Amino acid sequence: MGIGDDAALINTRPNQQLVVASDTLVEGVHFPSTATGKQIATRALCVNLSDMAAMGAQPRWFTLALTLPKDKANSLWLADFSAGIAEIAQQFDIALVGGDTTSGPLTVSMTLLGEAPSGESLQRAGAAVGDTVFITGTLGDGAAGLKLVSTINGKNSDSDRLLQRFYAPHPQVEIGLQLRAIASACIDISDGLIADLGHICQSSNVAATIYTEQLPIAADVRDIASDNGLNWALFGGDDYQLCFTVSADKLDKVEQLIDCGELTASKIGTINTADDSDNLVTVLDRDNNPVAVNKQGYDHFG
Amino acid sequence: MGIGDDAALINTRPNQQLVVASDTLVEGVHFPSTATGKQIATRALCVNLSDMAAMGAQPRWFTLALTLPKDKANSLWLADFSAGIAEIAQQFDIALVGGDTTSGPLTVSMTLLGEAPSGESLQRAGAAVGDTVFITGTLGDGAAGLKLVSTINGKNSDSDRLLQRFYAPHPQVEIGLQLRAIASACIDISDGLIADLGHICQSSNVAATIYTEQLPIAADVRDIASDNGLNWALFGGDDYQLCFTVSADKLDKVEQLIDCGELTASKIGTINTADDSDNLVTVLDRDNNPVAVNKQGYDHFG
Repeated sequence: MGIGDDAALINTRPNQQLVVASDTLVEGVHFPSTATGKQIATRALCVNLSDMAAMGAQPRWFTLALTLPKDKANSLWLADFSAGIAEIAQQFDIALVGGDTTSGPLTVSMTLLGEAPSGESLQRAGAAVGDTVFITGTLGDGAAGLKLVSTINGKNSDSDRLLQRFYAPHPQVEIGLQLRAIASACIDISDGLIADLGHICQSSNVAATIYTEQLPIAADVRDIASDNGLNWALFGGDDYQLCFTVSADKLDKVEQLIDCGELTASKIGTINTADDSDNLVTVLDRDNNPVAVNKQGYDHFG
Repeated sequence: MGIGDDAALINTRPNQQLVVASDTLVEGVHFPSTATGKQIATRALCVNLSDMAAMGAQPRWFTLALTLPKDKANSLWLADFSAGIAEIAQQFDIALVGGDTTSGPLTVSMTLLGEAPSGESLQRAGAAVGDTVFITGTLGDGAAGLKLVSTINGKNSDSDRLLQRFYAPHPQVEIGLQLRAIASACIDISDGLIADLGHICQSSNVAATIYTEQLPIAADVRDIASDNGLNWALFGGDDYQLCFTVSADKLDKVEQLIDCGELTASKIGTINTADDSDNLVTVLDRDNNPVAVNKQGYDHFG
């Protein structure tokens, strides 16, 4: 049964747990007012899909609550927005099962539903002392894209890749499924590496050390950064890569997957015993000196 | 697993279908700016629970996406809001399994998840010619409450019952469960009786006739209405009663349940063959003359 009734009916499969994630995007906070309907739709769905990836879940259904100001409640804007939804929904094979449209300030709220075999989903808790820390893809792309979005006022530039990284971050759903049997803990990078790896540490009662030399930062990000991209890589949000930990007995398997190109990930650090300090994540530079880490968090549009 | 991870894990029961409903409430559209945190929370959750009731589903879990302006992002407002959520969640035995809080114009978006035995949920389609139309409780309470909310600017008055009906409409969850084996079609009254019974007719390819003399309208609603409450009963939204249809072979059973006080519902009309006219719902007065029904819909705050 589709949209039209008061609610949607869903048939779940046996021996699967349901995985539920909600996210809301607000104009001026999570995207600028220059964003197109398609860009907003794409970003909203990708951000939510990334939560499924972090759980190692197979995304299957979603609901969409769209709050629209009068100037956007026209068929042109809606067609553009719907095109973005349709494209990503098709790409990830998920079905829109409900939702509503209301009048008000532009807000997109989604709930994604996925499935994972009982007991096999990935969680933040589970990292243990001696585990190795990995990150998929490259870091800092989202922050670099945000910088471009903020400065060029929506006009395209040569750095299309980074704009795309901001508006259409690629949710690492396939890698999340692959990591079910491999990772001891997993999270997606939405608030920045330091903050999100910190969430793993907090949930797992451990600390982490990461090495700046090992952080994967793309050449075009280094080009437009003043500090070789280090701050964006550490604190920039919206990368939507997966940060995961691997126990010693599975390290060989992961490195083999990486070596033969079946998994795009980089080893960036290790898990240690939590000490009394507030710093859950220690960052060491090329000379093994600690880098000052202040909790600057992620700078939204607000 | 609770809130804190990127998503929540839910264990569904075998042989149940999952029922999913989403609703968004926006300040100035669905509630006035004078509403308290608790009133907003209560109303948002009750409106969503009503969708579950209309499906004959047992509500079990919900997610909450709260967008808050800076003036409300304080512990006092949040404590009040949380108290409203906690009270209704406890009353209906549902668990908050996820959500997020973002900065922006006041918007409450919820997704409710419920369960119904496979094939037993209620739907809009299913009404057949010869069925009888019923409504639970009384009609027009929501519109009368809205009128009070709009005129008294949030100050309490003697008409507390109607204010309560607006801010805390009682979702007919128990009756929804009871109707699984009884109703041929069901909907909750959120847009007004004419509009919502029209939805049943449209989904079922039938028409309906209702009788003004049989509409249950409370005395306090008649008191403050200029027309004995008829317009509010027909067009007022936000009643969150259930309108349902019953086939001839089950009519005796329903009337028996009503007579012995096990079901609070009134017989208000019949289901007929759809004709070529646009009017899906015909309204007849005490002399069996048709009442002019214009599609005025429901007047929100916007």
